[in-house]
Amino acid sequence: MAGVIPEDYKDLFEKKAFANLATLNADGTPQVTPVWVDYDGDYVLVNSARGRRKDKNMERNRAVALSIQDPDNPYRYLEVRGHVDEITEQNAAQHIDKMAKKYMGVDKYPGQPGEVRVLYKIKPEHTSHMG
Amino acid sequence: MAGVIPEDYKDLFEKKAFANLATLNADGTPQVTPVWVDYDGDYVLVNSARGRRKDKNMERNRAVALSIQDPDNPYRYLEVRGHVDEITEQNAAQHIDKMAKKYMGVDKYPGQPGEVRVLYKIKPEHTSHMG
Repeated sequence: MAGVIPEDYKDLFEKKAFANLATLNADGTPQVTPVWVDYDGDYVLVNSARGRRKDKNMERNRAVALSIQDPDNPYRYLEVRGHVDEITEQNAAQHIDKMAKKYMGVDKYPGQPGEVRVLYKIKPEHTSHMG
Repeated sequence: MAGVIPEDYKDLFEKKAFANLATLNADGTPQVTPVWVDYDGDYVLVNSARGRRKDKNMERNRAVALSIQDPDNPYRYLEVRGHVDEITEQNAAQHIDKMAKKYMGVDKYPGQPGEVRVLYKIKPEHTSHMG
């Protein structure tokens, strides 16, 4: 399963590439917004805050898809489909700081006061790619 | 209904901004890939080819969502949710040439031989935005 992300697309996770994360609303219709993205060699990781639409959606229905475009070439992209295996607040605050470092070059994520960060571990099941 | 796209986000359709289009697979899970996008003042327009996953998905289930990031600022984006009101091959070939002009600066879309282009007219129902 660790081999599902194609070797020659793993560089996307090293770049400041956004993922567009699709989740399912309560009525089964899709929702999609850009998010920061990470990969730990097994799971694709995204980070959100309690109470947001995508948080509620993934708590209700674990099926997701992500599209990750190469910031250096929009015609090169990886699509990942899978399910959220784990939703946890543990290490979510540290993880968003790691993402702030990667995407913004800062040590501390400038979040909202009182915001509770949540980490979603997505098991890739299918991928497609172009470019 | 024509007013659903916020006035101050309409500039995104003038830029070479990609949309990430989320559709629903047969099993209800989401799919998302980048596409060229257009807006005619009423409908959000996307263009694909017969037989592709997103074509089959929209033929089966009209519920879609799009995320459109500003190429000049990835933290500025518009999300559109809605339904495909019309799926047509009429003017779809002309429309993909228009998109090729916008995104690639060429007069003719360099498609695959035998490819049948399809135009999807999406009625925006809800939007959210950031930035």
